[in-house]
Amino acid sequence: MTRQELINQIRMKRSFLCVGLDSDPKKMPQCVFDLHDPVFEFNKAIIDATAPYCVAYKPNLAFYEAYGMEGIAAFESTIEYLNENYPDHFVIADAKRGDIGNTSAMYAKTFFEQYDVDALTVAPYMGEDSVMPFLGYKDKWVILLALTSNKGSHDFQLMEDVKGERLFEKVLKTSQQWGDKDNMMYVVGATQGRMFEDIRKLVPDHFLLVPGIGAQGGSLEEVCRYGMIPGDVGLLVNSSRGIIYASQGEDFAEKAAEKAQELQQQMAAIMKG
Amino acid sequence: MTRQELINQIRMKRSFLCVGLDSDPKKMPQCVFDLHDPVFEFNKAIIDATAPYCVAYKPNLAFYEAYGMEGIAAFESTIEYLNENYPDHFVIADAKRGDIGNTSAMYAKTFFEQYDVDALTVAPYMGEDSVMPFLGYKDKWVILLALTSNKGSHDFQLMEDVKGERLFEKVLKTSQQWGDKDNMMYVVGATQGRMFEDIRKLVPDHFLLVPGIGAQGGSLEEVCRYGMIPGDVGLLVNSSRGIIYASQGEDFAEKAAEKAQELQQQMAAIMKG
Repeated sequence: MTRQELINQIRMKRSFLCVGLDSDPKKMPQCVFDLHDPVFEFNKAIIDATAPYCVAYKPNLAFYEAYGMEGIAAFESTIEYLNENYPDHFVIADAKRGDIGNTSAMYAKTFFEQYDVDALTVAPYMGEDSVMPFLGYKDKWVILLALTSNKGSHDFQLMEDVKGERLFEKVLKTSQQWGDKDNMMYVVGATQGRMFEDIRKLVPDHFLLVPGIGAQGGSLEEVCRYGMIPGDVGLLVNSSRGIIYASQGEDFAEKAAEKAQELQQQMAAIMKG
Repeated sequence: MTRQELINQIRMKRSFLCVGLDSDPKKMPQCVFDLHDPVFEFNKAIIDATAPYCVAYKPNLAFYEAYGMEGIAAFESTIEYLNENYPDHFVIADAKRGDIGNTSAMYAKTFFEQYDVDALTVAPYMGEDSVMPFLGYKDKWVILLALTSNKGSHDFQLMEDVKGERLFEKVLKTSQQWGDKDNMMYVVGATQGRMFEDIRKLVPDHFLLVPGIGAQGGSLEEVCRYGMIPGDVGLLVNSSRGIIYASQGEDFAEKAAEKAQELQQQMAAIMKG
């Protein structure tokens, strides 16, 4: 999917919501376990219910890998279902990959050829040749970790060099030599508040994938105040647990849709303002 | 496996060789494709042939994930085969994972409970809570990326703060508050030469996993001169392509054994010296 196509979807739906499919059998409602493929059926119901309110889905690989072949099969079925039925939704594999060049090339093949997702989250620690293999695919995206939403983001990401430049800023600056606003986004946690101001100085036009709303405590208003690009929006705000586990009953998909719609309405109000 | 058990194996075999199972169907000899499960059969033959000369195996997940369910099945079978037949070999899943706490916990479950490998490579960018979930397992190991073997290692890992401390040094120092020499190793590329001296000042007792010998150009002698711990050795030196693709013929396992034995003999000579 191109940047312009994504922006068009955001404008049409008045939403920049990404629904995180962190689908954990331990937290899924009992009713799905009567079905043949519980994780896929859970995802399918969540997707069908929330699709009108979001522009992106982000399955988190950890939750699928933890259930072995069955989990991987559910991941594959979910991506296939999305690509067939919701081709206008942006699909992100949240896998945080990154390795030496020949290995990153294998990961790129897996996610962009085999699964055919739109984007993959990538860890920057190993530098240029660990990221470049992901950037060779037309209309596919690298979403590079910059300033993450967790407490541990302070351990290394805020390290400052002699000029006062922090590691996450170096990642933002250096990586712009590798890709551009049409094939690269950055992960910036919603918990980082006014840091979005500093980030926008370095990447005024890039989309940011923003986790950390809801369970992790980030504020949508603050993210938008400091991070939104006028007109293009430039944000994909993710919510996982707050939406997909909104109810433990048979109404789980309905409740997920309500939560997604609430966020969509807040987003529409912000876009109008 | 405990640190002492690993050291005992190294002393007994006079080897600190790790064989990297980067098993790519595109590079495997034609003869294995007549068999039911080519990747597993290739690995099995390589393992049986090289086991006397090495103390560790390191399958690289990228190469298995790239072939979907079939690839994952071959990875599972390989781990099972190693655990059943070679319980004294140290098994490393090279997956470079790392995410927010609840997600890292899922990855830990996958690799340490489901697959039951001894160790997992982990990326440090997201800090403490992304690494801690891997450290809660008895006799299991985190192998944290410190100074990698690739060119891109210079992009961020060598960044210096005002005191002249580099990012990889900060990773080495900070992470010692999370784990210790009994559950944590570090990745240091063989291509980093004399940097091993600086690293040993910070982590005198920790094992280092050293990729980059062979195809990537690192020198075994140099690594040992600056990185070896007297008595305990403290190194696992990995070779992947140089061993497993030593021949494209039916003698591929035999040639792999020869290459492994060559390295083992060099290692024995160094240990004697």
